[in-house]
Amino acid sequence: MPRPPFPAPVLDMLRRPQPAVMAVSRADGSPVTAATWYVLDEDGDGAGRLLLNFEDGRKRLEHLRANPQVSLTVLGDSWYTHVTLLGSVAEWRDDVDLTDIDRLSRHYGGDPYPVRDRARVTALVEVDRWTAWGALGDAR
Amino acid sequence: MPRPPFPAPVLDMLRRPQPAVMAVSRADGSPVTAATWYVLDEDGDGAGRLLLNFEDGRKRLEHLRANPQVSLTVLGDSWYTHVTLLGSVAEWRDDVDLTDIDRLSRHYGGDPYPVRDRARVTALVEVDRWTAWGALGDAR
Repeated sequence: MPRPPFPAPVLDMLRRPQPAVMAVSRADGSPVTAATWYVLDEDGDGAGRLLLNFEDGRKRLEHLRANPQVSLTVLGDSWYTHVTLLGSVAEWRDDVDLTDIDRLSRHYGGDPYPVRDRARVTALVEVDRWTAWGALGDAR
Repeated sequence: MPRPPFPAPVLDMLRRPQPAVMAVSRADGSPVTAATWYVLDEDGDGAGRLLLNFEDGRKRLEHLRANPQVSLTVLGDSWYTHVTLLGSVAEWRDDVDLTDIDRLSRHYGGDPYPVRDRARVTALVEVDRWTAWGALGDAR
């Protein structure tokens, strides 16, 4: 599997608000998946970092704090075009003023995030390897 | 998290050819995701079983043989409606005459699977627990 940086066709797709599913591992080693918003964080030295955001207290967050390894599959516009990114959380931060979830919410839907009264946490995931299938498979 | 059988709105969605992403665990406990076809296998005593099919020799298949635990997230028609199914492989079978991949291919696209010269393997996954978000969240 290749490492970042991403070739242009993969980068183009990852910059769009595509449907995505992430997996984390539980303590017993079993995987747990969930649909998620993500955004490619290309500011500063963050090349290849994924920004994910969680409501504090979520079980998934607990799993990820215990084992920072993440797999994210981003679906393309046809069923077969998809990109999988493997990495681990490089940085945690409290999303004190909901800047990060608003960034995600605007990216996906255009509006700030409607729920304002719950603590949220941001994980910045360093991508170690990635792979692509379908129309992006040539980019491997 | 509830156990099967699924309530009607969840079952209705799972019966449709929705986009889905599965995760397996590698030997080091890290998760790996990939987009996948699935079909709900409701024949015989298979209530709650998911049928997945793999090209023989795939790394993912190797991981799944070593650790049969699977998580599958099925995406609904809006970004927030999704169902996650947790389970493990209850039965393996060689897809000798490609019956199973053809069933999946017809379910998703209407045609038999175009690649006929590679060995394939079917996993039947017993669903232990599931959870739903979004429009199906009430069904939890």
